[in-house]
Amino acid sequence: MSKKVGVGLLGLGTVGSGVASILENPENRHPLVNDIQIIQVAVRDLSRKRSSELTNATLTDNPQSVVDDPKVAVVVEVMGGIEPARTLIMRAISAGKSVVTANKALIARHGEEIATAANAAGVYVLIEAAVGGGIPIIEPLKQSLGGNKINKVSGIINGTTNYILSRMANEGVPYTDVLTKAQELGYAEADPAADVEGFDAADKIAILSGLAFGGSIKRSEIPTQGITKLQSRDVDFAKRLGYAVKLLAISERLDPSPQDSNSLPLAVRVKPTLVPLNHPLAGVDGVNNAILVEGDPIGQVMFYGPGAGAGPTASAVVADILNIAGIGQTQKKHNRKP
Amino acid sequence: MSKKVGVGLLGLGTVGSGVASILENPENRHPLVNDIQIIQVAVRDLSRKRSSELTNATLTDNPQSVVDDPKVAVVVEVMGGIEPARTLIMRAISAGKSVVTANKALIARHGEEIATAANAAGVYVLIEAAVGGGIPIIEPLKQSLGGNKINKVSGIINGTTNYILSRMANEGVPYTDVLTKAQELGYAEADPAADVEGFDAADKIAILSGLAFGGSIKRSEIPTQGITKLQSRDVDFAKRLGYAVKLLAISERLDPSPQDSNSLPLAVRVKPTLVPLNHPLAGVDGVNNAILVEGDPIGQVMFYGPGAGAGPTASAVVADILNIAGIGQTQKKHNRKP
Repeated sequence: MSKKVGVGLLGLGTVGSGVASILENPENRHPLVNDIQIIQVAVRDLSRKRSSELTNATLTDNPQSVVDDPKVAVVVEVMGGIEPARTLIMRAISAGKSVVTANKALIARHGEEIATAANAAGVYVLIEAAVGGGIPIIEPLKQSLGGNKINKVSGIINGTTNYILSRMANEGVPYTDVLTKAQELGYAEADPAADVEGFDAADKIAILSGLAFGGSIKRSEIPTQGITKLQSRDVDFAKRLGYAVKLLAISERLDPSPQDSNSLPLAVRVKPTLVPLNHPLAGVDGVNNAILVEGDPIGQVMFYGPGAGAGPTASAVVADILNIAGIGQTQKKHNRKP
Repeated sequence: MSKKVGVGLLGLGTVGSGVASILENPENRHPLVNDIQIIQVAVRDLSRKRSSELTNATLTDNPQSVVDDPKVAVVVEVMGGIEPARTLIMRAISAGKSVVTANKALIARHGEEIATAANAAGVYVLIEAAVGGGIPIIEPLKQSLGGNKINKVSGIINGTTNYILSRMANEGVPYTDVLTKAQELGYAEADPAADVEGFDAADKIAILSGLAFGGSIKRSEIPTQGITKLQSRDVDFAKRLGYAVKLLAISERLDPSPQDSNSLPLAVRVKPTLVPLNHPLAGVDGVNNAILVEGDPIGQVMFYGPGAGAGPTASAVVADILNIAGIGQTQKKHNRKP
């Protein structure tokens, strides 16, 4: 019935391929998936062999041509890194295109600049995939919990460190051994610093803080401690005392607010934390993530699921694409069933 | 800046009062809360003394006058029961007004009629509060998980029975004693049948099934078994074998689909179920609810929180009001932060 919404993909790695796979196989998914068409895809190496998922899209090694394609209404950035992702996103916004991105490092550092440009241009920049992998947390925080005064957001938002801590706790394996195993399994990078030093979690809590409390969090000012100094015996002692050791990212409202009007009325931090074993976050094992939101009048609500991986992250990216595609058809979408 | 969105409340019981309390105190909540105004409120007894929350709204004992008020754009039905709720909602839809309702019994039985009327009239009927109390589950199912082929939805969606089963498991108290206690605490009704016989959970899984799988579930055809025949020793034996006994409501896709084209390709049921103690649903205790959604490519994602109560339910109702109010202002809402 309606004209299809043209999508341009920047990147065709694991997440990009996952997004393509969903969009090219609409059966049994949200009816709006049928209304989305991938127009152009930017890849690094055109000569690389690929699966035959992409039937009608043009491949290019020039990402700018994706952004500039007049048939592309939504630019999906799944290439990662700060540049050229930032420049490409700003260019898309200037051209009046909406953007979907999974790039937490970029949003944590340049989110305000990007949001300001998007508001000025009257387009959307949606970032569900930037935090918690497939777990719906960004949209629920913005919308479903909008009636609440949020007091605290805390969670396990780095799957790699949670995998390591879970195995240290459950099997008593030393940190370095588990890290090696995580690298073999592809759960950890060759250079694991972003994960094990807590930097990735700090990126994500900066984003969640901005959404939950509306303030602007300076990424560089978040006290961040990773798990590199933890030993198996620390984890073991904690367990015997009734606690799990989890790398928690926390942002909470300070009450009363600080006198100094330059300080944000928030305490934000990333650090290994003792969590009582009967606490909902204690049972979150392996590469799973969970985010606990505390607000008034809702009390505590928790979102749990796969914090990374091609499928889950692609699920979140597609949710944002559908959200943008659905804005012209909100009615149909809202009354879908029952 | 913008004209306020006029809301009419049908009912001012615990949920209605909770909604009023949020809307009259917008500080630190979503900025859109400022743009919403309660115009008229229908109550059963005008002479009853009330708190002074409602500053600018008219009280009436004629619910029809709320629906007919030209300043009311959104009708919020929190009176419960099938009639007159159904007639009032249909009247609001005919008048071109959007509706927010927490009425699971009504939606489970007349959801299709209501959705059809809403689509024809071009208005919204939102039902976040009908399942899982404050837990965002309806909007995430409709939107955030839209890229997935949903295979199974299962959960603990009745707080009363979960409270009873939790106390039976943790303290070995007999069923009838815990039920009496639950009634004293207000967790269970004087006539507890809707909860303990599983009828309430069946209403809710009918709604979730419709959303997840798009089909039309006949409420009366859902096999439903409650917890009245469970004894403490059943719960205790299960625990010793490594299981929790939970009243689960389950809806799953049958694969392959049944040959008979008149049968829905779904298996839906409510019954006490043995859940392995390391399963995410096993740790959901007390009056909390949790809904586990399994889909492709996301895997498993779980939504956990308070399944009932004035504050959580009001939070969900307000989320829907904000959703409707925000449709004219989607852009501002989406780019709120960062």
